[in-house]
Amino acid sequence: MTSFNHYKSVIRLNELAENPIDLREESVLNSKRVDNYMSEALGLKMFYATERVSEVELQALYDLGEEAQAIQKMHRMQAGDVINSIEGFESEQRSVLHTAMRDFFENTNPAAKARDASKLAYHELEKLTQFLKDLEGKDTYTDMVQIGIGGSDLGPRAIYHALKVYEKPNRRAHFFSNVDPDDGALVLSGLDLKKTLFVVVSKSGSTLETKTNEEFVRDHLIKAGLDPKNHMIAVTGKGSPMDDPSRYLASFYIWDYIGGRYSVTSMVGGVILAFSLGMDRFLDFLRGANAMDKLSLKEDCRFNLPLLSALLGIWNRNFLGYPTMAVIPYSQALFRFPAHLQQLNMESNGKRIDKRGNPVEFDTGPVIWGEPGTNGQHSFFQLIHQGTSVVPVEFLGFFENQYKQDILFQGTSCQEKLLANLFAQSIALATGQRNENPNKYFPGNRPNRILLGAKLDPYTLGLLLSYYENSVAFQGFIWNINSFDQEGVQLGKVLASQFIDLFAQKRTKKEGKGFAIGQAYFRHLSSYSTEP
Amino acid sequence: MTSFNHYKSVIRLNELAENPIDLREESVLNSKRVDNYMSEALGLKMFYATERVSEVELQALYDLGEEAQAIQKMHRMQAGDVINSIEGFESEQRSVLHTAMRDFFENTNPAAKARDASKLAYHELEKLTQFLKDLEGKDTYTDMVQIGIGGSDLGPRAIYHALKVYEKPNRRAHFFSNVDPDDGALVLSGLDLKKTLFVVVSKSGSTLETKTNEEFVRDHLIKAGLDPKNHMIAVTGKGSPMDDPSRYLASFYIWDYIGGRYSVTSMVGGVILAFSLGMDRFLDFLRGANAMDKLSLKEDCRFNLPLLSALLGIWNRNFLGYPTMAVIPYSQALFRFPAHLQQLNMESNGKRIDKRGNPVEFDTGPVIWGEPGTNGQHSFFQLIHQGTSVVPVEFLGFFENQYKQDILFQGTSCQEKLLANLFAQSIALATGQRNENPNKYFPGNRPNRILLGAKLDPYTLGLLLSYYENSVAFQGFIWNINSFDQEGVQLGKVLASQFIDLFAQKRTKKEGKGFAIGQAYFRHLSSYSTEP
Repeated sequence: MTSFNHYKSVIRLNELAENPIDLREESVLNSKRVDNYMSEALGLKMFYATERVSEVELQALYDLGEEAQAIQKMHRMQAGDVINSIEGFESEQRSVLHTAMRDFFENTNPAAKARDASKLAYHELEKLTQFLKDLEGKDTYTDMVQIGIGGSDLGPRAIYHALKVYEKPNRRAHFFSNVDPDDGALVLSGLDLKKTLFVVVSKSGSTLETKTNEEFVRDHLIKAGLDPKNHMIAVTGKGSPMDDPSRYLASFYIWDYIGGRYSVTSMVGGVILAFSLGMDRFLDFLRGANAMDKLSLKEDCRFNLPLLSALLGIWNRNFLGYPTMAVIPYSQALFRFPAHLQQLNMESNGKRIDKRGNPVEFDTGPVIWGEPGTNGQHSFFQLIHQGTSVVPVEFLGFFENQYKQDILFQGTSCQEKLLANLFAQSIALATGQRNENPNKYFPGNRPNRILLGAKLDPYTLGLLLSYYENSVAFQGFIWNINSFDQEGVQLGKVLASQFIDLFAQKRTKKEGKGFAIGQAYFRHLSSYSTEP
Repeated sequence: MTSFNHYKSVIRLNELAENPIDLREESVLNSKRVDNYMSEALGLKMFYATERVSEVELQALYDLGEEAQAIQKMHRMQAGDVINSIEGFESEQRSVLHTAMRDFFENTNPAAKARDASKLAYHELEKLTQFLKDLEGKDTYTDMVQIGIGGSDLGPRAIYHALKVYEKPNRRAHFFSNVDPDDGALVLSGLDLKKTLFVVVSKSGSTLETKTNEEFVRDHLIKAGLDPKNHMIAVTGKGSPMDDPSRYLASFYIWDYIGGRYSVTSMVGGVILAFSLGMDRFLDFLRGANAMDKLSLKEDCRFNLPLLSALLGIWNRNFLGYPTMAVIPYSQALFRFPAHLQQLNMESNGKRIDKRGNPVEFDTGPVIWGEPGTNGQHSFFQLIHQGTSVVPVEFLGFFENQYKQDILFQGTSCQEKLLANLFAQSIALATGQRNENPNKYFPGNRPNRILLGAKLDPYTLGLLLSYYENSVAFQGFIWNINSFDQEGVQLGKVLASQFIDLFAQKRTKKEGKGFAIGQAYFRHLSSYSTEP
């Protein structure tokens, strides 16, 4: 297999990148270009006239998708092939089947492995439906706290906040992730423990933070005279140390083919989202994700939005050389969505070897970051407009608001002002502005695109979630890296356990031995106490 | 004046950057190095053995500070000289006196301008004290909502959440910033408007979002049968359109020498922080900031923590060439602090011209981003450890937790586990790990430092706030850019108003004229409605 740098299309794209289209002239970024560089699918519109591409670059990017067999690899992923692997070296050796978690609306996947995974997923969903029905009858529990970290936290948290407008009466969700005891103290401080359920989420059943935080909660429950078993739900792998009915009110399963950062549509997100928003909303969310998964198999790049996005991202990253990308939702409800995308993208594609174990000779995943607009305009946008680093931006927006509480002020609604700002920023970044005062000069040519939906509802958010999941996967396919493991988190764990040993030794007054560097830090900390 | 690239120290640093110290060997990153690369002041310890510097680089960096007259410029800033300016071009032409907002504990500033600013600030503080005392008597108001955006939002919000443990009984703070009407709808949904005060914060009195959101709230108050005047407080410039006693219960002033992103210690943060946390806590916060301001004037770089941090940042940015920096607080209470620092740093130093109006020929401010640890470890740390882009990290940590609700689990407390992870990550990034499996290989040499305090209390947070404010200012001084204006936000405003006009025309069925590019976007939006 040819490596990325040797694709014909890559050689061509390197040539093209020497002289990309100049967006600063009105004769370039005009109405016709807006029309021509607009793709629409499943009710989403992507405006990319403000990216530094013309037809030749787009064609070369489509060629890259073909040379790298991006669509075929997406088929293989969705079929359950073992793609989470590094050839010739010890690796996870797993299928990647988060798409199966939402593929039971029409049972059309030709691969038995994927269909089986969907059946198992649907079985958990039925268990959950029954469990929630039983709760309805009792109406005892009003609050649910998710205890999980990383993928067991960021995705479900982002989705919950994005859809909070749909929250069921007398139902609320909370999230407890950090091993910082102040996180737990604050989350628990506002709760009536009698009416609270805790979902402990860990595939392995042994995540340090999650097990510690579960213990923190059990301690609080016991002190409140409650039996933890009546308040604890497990979401874990079958047979894990947490798969223990004697300690949990209910257990829901996930599988080794569901990576944490891809787990929102599994029971990892399902329990708390269906509890707080209702099962119907959760199913709509899954329907959206499933529809986008199917769109991701479409050969025509112009309508395959995740692939188009992946290719534009690769153009900015590998050919124009930009090291970061900002995701700016013009929607306050999406305030935690960039943090989820940050994990999804950076943990998947922050890799330095390809699937054959060779160090890559090109850049992989960029730094992903972002905050909602218009807020960002009054903050870091200064650097995006006039800094020395170019930051590609993906804007997200919606036509309607969620709460229907808008007002007219000075002739327009808030929602119109919000959208006006979104479009204005996109154009301003692309065109820049000439001015004799150098401080009022905007260099322009700062690439960006807009993804626009009608309204942020469960289905549309499902579309968006899968759009990003599959876009990240496509980039990994094209770079030929493994987007589904995370070996980079292991070294820190090993060193942390050595530091934890030092703390434990200090506590028991044992002499610390070995780990000289750790002891050096410890000497500087001797004046402090960390007693609970 | 010599420009950055021509300083002798810069030429020297460029030579040194060709072969920076290799941190991967145990013989390098050892106990002695930990001791030698540790600075302590005002109870904060900075560990920077894990930065890629040795004595020669440090000496050259100190020389850079001297050549650029960093300390003298800090003196001039704190004295109230007109440093917010671009020579020979129209510019703001203002002093920069946020440090005066907290310099009334000992009246030692030799500059009359600064002392006058402190007197004015103290007068507002006295007004606020009286206003809050009057409230105590009535005990009518339990909630306060800050209506502001950018600097009027991010700083006060970050500080409030960081110190929430100190919240007064029956007092809560909320923030409404985005022109997205769903932001306001959600914030107001949980409030008893009768018991709620709204602080409208806009120096100019005309910020689009803030004025719109004020109107949004006035509309809700009137619909609830309440008189807005009894619920609205203004924080604005004297003589601004908002300086109008007929519309506000009280008015507090800010001045043109207080930039939005530097305004937390003025009335911009003062009203809501003193209301929710108590005046004593707000004063402790100011004391901390004031102490760090004074430390920032210290000639010896080793103890001038903000200058040391600025120099290490410049080493990473300009000489090692890293385009971003992550700030990772190992403290859940600081979850919004990186967003404040993002504005503070990127809006200040995301500049492309120097103070004489010449385009810079070097990189200025990096992209600043971050999320709390340990959460980040289960997310984007994969890229920081094994990605192709190197991301310098500043870790923040504290010895004690805030809520004192820790537990012992498997021989250590949560707080100990938290700190163990912090130190482990710092070392893991620096040393990396050799391994025959390329996927378990960590390249190492990834620069980072740790800033450690005893406890996140108001005084310590004041220290940290000023540490970052002054570090950002020092970098601007050394680059000789103007860190105190924000011309980059203007172009978007102009274009947004053109789009707003299009929406208004659509609403009144008038024919749109001109602004062809805007109309091109509008044609694609015709199927949607944005009725309030």
